[in-house]
Amino acid sequence: MSSTVIHGIGSLVTNDPTLGEGPLGLVPDAALVFEDERVAWAGPAGAAPPADTAWDAGGRAVLPGFVDSHSHLLFAGDRTEEFNARMSGRPYSAGGIRTTVAATRAASDVELRENLRRHLREALRQGSTTMETKSGYGLTTEQESRALRVAAELTEEVTYLGAHVVPAEYAEDPAGYVALVTGPMLDACAPYARWVDAFCERGAFDEDQARAILRAGRERGLTPRIHANQLSYGPGVRLGVELGAASADHCTHLTDADVDALAQGDTVATLLPGCEFSTRAVYPDARRLLDAGVTVALSTDCNPGSSFTSSMPFCVAIAVREMGMTPGEAVWSATAGGARALRRADVGRLSAGAYADLAVLDAPSHVHLAYRPGVPLVREVWRRGSRVD
Amino acid sequence: MSSTVIHGIGSLVTNDPTLGEGPLGLVPDAALVFEDERVAWAGPAGAAPPADTAWDAGGRAVLPGFVDSHSHLLFAGDRTEEFNARMSGRPYSAGGIRTTVAATRAASDVELRENLRRHLREALRQGSTTMETKSGYGLTTEQESRALRVAAELTEEVTYLGAHVVPAEYAEDPAGYVALVTGPMLDACAPYARWVDAFCERGAFDEDQARAILRAGRERGLTPRIHANQLSYGPGVRLGVELGAASADHCTHLTDADVDALAQGDTVATLLPGCEFSTRAVYPDARRLLDAGVTVALSTDCNPGSSFTSSMPFCVAIAVREMGMTPGEAVWSATAGGARALRRADVGRLSAGAYADLAVLDAPSHVHLAYRPGVPLVREVWRRGSRVD
Ligand SMILES: [Zn+2]
Ligand SMILES: [Zn+2]
Repeated sequence: MSSTVIHGIGSLVTNDPTLGEGPLGLVPDAALVFEDERVAWAGPAGAAPPADTAWDAGGRAVLPGFVDSHSHLLFAGDRTEEFNARMSGRPYSAGGIRTTVAATRAASDVELRENLRRHLREALRQGSTTMETKSGYGLTTEQESRALRVAAELTEEVTYLGAHVVPAEYAEDPAGYVALVTGPMLDACAPYARWVDAFCERGAFDEDQARAILRAGRERGLTPRIHANQLSYGPGVRLGVELGAASADHCTHLTDADVDALAQGDTVATLLPGCEFSTRAVYPDARRLLDAGVTVALSTDCNPGSSFTSSMPFCVAIAVREMGMTPGEAVWSATAGGARALRRADVGRLSAGAYADLAVLDAPSHVHLAYRPGVPLVREVWRRGSRVD
Repeated sequence: MSSTVIHGIGSLVTNDPTLGEGPLGLVPDAALVFEDERVAWAGPAGAAPPADTAWDAGGRAVLPGFVDSHSHLLFAGDRTEEFNARMSGRPYSAGGIRTTVAATRAASDVELRENLRRHLREALRQGSTTMETKSGYGLTTEQESRALRVAAELTEEVTYLGAHVVPAEYAEDPAGYVALVTGPMLDACAPYARWVDAFCERGAFDEDQARAILRAGRERGLTPRIHANQLSYGPGVRLGVELGAASADHCTHLTDADVDALAQGDTVATLLPGCEFSTRAVYPDARRLLDAGVTVALSTDCNPGSSFTSSMPFCVAIAVREMGMTPGEAVWSATAGGARALRRADVGRLSAGAYADLAVLDAPSHVHLAYRPGVPLVREVWRRGSRVD
């Protein structure tokens, strides 16, 4: 077993309130010790146990690696022209998700794998040490299962989203598509996935369809999560809580009953500000959720259509500017919150037993992620106790 | 003389409409040749003249280095706690600019120089190859002149902003401070500066004071620029146009008469969205200015109080999201627009005779700066024909 100590940490976010101040468990002038892949000790620099090798953080802030619990990285092509037209007020006959479906279906396994690898690496360099990703641009049994097979090679958090949209070939027979998603497609996909997801929204899947899909997944051992209440008020959030979903994602349009349901249940509300940013939509109200006692996660929703950012620091800055979060709350939601949304206790914190997944900032405190928007502050990333280059 | 060709450019922004499509002078599948510090040729890859050394951009987009025409980098200390309190809704007895004045006065020349160097380098790595910076945190003859002396060592675009605020020691005698700023302080500062600036706003300097300060500077060979109409409607913009200022900066609160004045005159409107972002203020309306025919620049306003970002890509993304600019307009304003605001013809474009100052993006087009917000897309930077490491 090999041990490493990082000393000279100007400010350490542990997310363990027993180790430091507040919900972030902040420790000033700190050190962190890990043994192989796991944190062995975190606390004040003066009290650190000895270790085989030492590394000096030079007064910089250290925080748990971001846990990005919602992304769509199994795609090919991009949608630059659609974005450009939307932001320029020019008409564009956008195919929306179906444009990406066509490009993804045409891509080879190698291409799909290389795209995913590139995006995971881009995110990792920005401090995202845990990434969830979803299928949903294949929409046939073969395409969805090969996407998830590729995903399972490269990330642990894999979500089956056959229920992203009804593909064109089932436009006249949505019930037939639900039968496929809950039948042969699920059979082919379940071995590769941990999660089942559905896009519950007008124009996608309604309450009954989404319930059938998430229940079918649950019966195959997948845990539900749900795209809910993004574009309009609707049943998605309450359905998620009813089914014990780990997370209800988007949560942009919520009634008081939705907020209550989230506060009573143990479904995390995952907010995706990159999506509202890139579609000029209204932002979800994080403050309302936090004040009601709901657990909030922040995630990128990285996808080529509505939110092509992989930057968790950007999401933190936007959440503070636009969604009523304090810098500390936003950082918690981007780390510990994401871990809750993925039901993981081994990431999103830096205390004994957790993976040694961390980001070192070119700044003295985590507040700088909001204070210095857009500046690439993530200087170094460690994952599983090894420095990423 | 040594020549270099960059070929394999997926999309080249020249900002020379004679070389390519639209105001950006976009050339797909392009090459760029430079000799020593200057661009010798730009155009379609197939037509490129030979050069001594070749470098392959791998299909990436290349654009002129950003011209950040408004920053305040001559400071010490930061204002993390003030920012954190503001964004958390907590009371904080903020000293505002005066906090930074106290820290800056207490800093040694070496400290001030190292801070400036670090910030210029951080900006350069994000693609800002030309940076203006200002005094304004010293507010004594000695302090302002030593700040500008330090600035002149490290950047060509140096602005005398003794008229940032009235310092505490002149609170009862603002006229005395104006006399200082237009007299001995100006004498001491003029040798180091190209520009004179004044913060024309209620609580800072009124129209008559600002006029006196900018005129005095002009008589000493400095060209005016002005902080105008940031926090409220006022005379700043029209005063700037009256005095032939190169730029009126902020332009957040404009009457139709202000917009007309800008459209008739040759004062650039420089918009600073980082400031509105970090103070939760209303954004300036770039669309209105562009539609009126005003030349618009984008800049960071990088300073520790109201806008601690050095990221021009971030400003581009915010300008598109919030200010009605198209991605192309925002990129133009962040490059060619900044050059106009500094009355420079040798930067902000990539065509024969300009400095070979450029950014290579990890993306196939300049649109990605808005399409992929927060992602550190600037992969390489060249300045004066040399690659920055
Ligand atoms: Zn999604
Ligand atoms: Zn300023």
